[in-house]
Amino acid sequence: MVRKQNPDIKDRLLDQGIRLVTENGYHGTGLKKILDTVNVPKGSFYNYFESKEKYVAQIIKRYSETLLMQVDEYIETTEDDPLTALKNIFHMAIVQLESKGNQGCLTGNLAAEIGGSISACRLALKDAVLLWKSRLSGLIGKAQENGQIRNDIRADLLADMLWDIWQGGLLRIKIDHDTEYLRKIIFTTLDTLLR
Amino acid sequence: MVRKQNPDIKDRLLDQGIRLVTENGYHGTGLKKILDTVNVPKGSFYNYFESKEKYVAQIIKRYSETLLMQVDEYIETTEDDPLTALKNIFHMAIVQLESKGNQGCLTGNLAAEIGGSISACRLALKDAVLLWKSRLSGLIGKAQENGQIRNDIRADLLADMLWDIWQGGLLRIKIDHDTEYLRKIIFTTLDTLLR
Repeated sequence: MVRKQNPDIKDRLLDQGIRLVTENGYHGTGLKKILDTVNVPKGSFYNYFESKEKYVAQIIKRYSETLLMQVDEYIETTEDDPLTALKNIFHMAIVQLESKGNQGCLTGNLAAEIGGSISACRLALKDAVLLWKSRLSGLIGKAQENGQIRNDIRADLLADMLWDIWQGGLLRIKIDHDTEYLRKIIFTTLDTLLR
Repeated sequence: MVRKQNPDIKDRLLDQGIRLVTENGYHGTGLKKILDTVNVPKGSFYNYFESKEKYVAQIIKRYSETLLMQVDEYIETTEDDPLTALKNIFHMAIVQLESKGNQGCLTGNLAAEIGGSISACRLALKDAVLLWKSRLSGLIGKAQENGQIRNDIRADLLADMLWDIWQGGLLRIKIDHDTEYLRKIIFTTLDTLLR
């Protein structure tokens, strides 16, 4: 049965979800709390989403698409060389992270908590990682052509490693609360390991 | 009040906790499920642990100490050179992971889920990471003296990066179920990036 949806409410449910799930995880975020914050009665949640699983899968999609849009706009309009562009993207990501209280990355947090167990979310996480990796790999490839990044390892494998260092670093700052650490490892990777 | 404890029950509670929390996370693991598996009535849980927070903090400690003991025994008795020793440690870790259904690393999973929110666990996670890092850093330092690993970056910073790549890679295999990926990034890191 197709029910009447208010797109504004749907957006608010997704946006509150991004905030609360990043902070408290999948199992730590009750639907009731989200619904209370957005002021929506419980019954009508199911007008918008089939289940909590599918809702969180859409949260993952919206979260990564919103961030990717910012990154893509920057990549398309910048005149920075590819290595500087990579550094700027991570710099901007760390600044955003600091402004949101160092809660880490929604996709990384959910991969750890439910990546292995909830399949709708697992597929959304796979897609998100794939898209991020394609942006990193594109810039790394260009930097290799420019001679700014070593070319003894394929661009897509370097992109994997850079993404994993980033995700591992994000885990670390959840327990250490020190984003300077994140800057140190990402910029040492780009300036030294990958040169 | 000090109550009578059966050390065997305490160990079983911790061991079951390691298994269930690795699989289902902090919020996804109810005490009831653990108690049912170990066949202990709910009331007596509090003879052993003050709270779920403190219980999970002890789980983290036991998990990382058990693994560290194996690693330390290997480091102390091996005649392998330090770079080979590093590779063997990761090789053994991946084999253990595969034997347990790729559920990832308890400390990494918990860092993502509750590292920012539950302070007793946060401190246990910090200690665990510190101990792991010290082992990696020790071997990397020896490999630098041997000329097997680059020495333009301090051993402890390389250990940070290696640990973060590992943790990021563990997140990835939770969604991709492909431990070959983990081998590829860890061995490329050790054989190429760190040389």
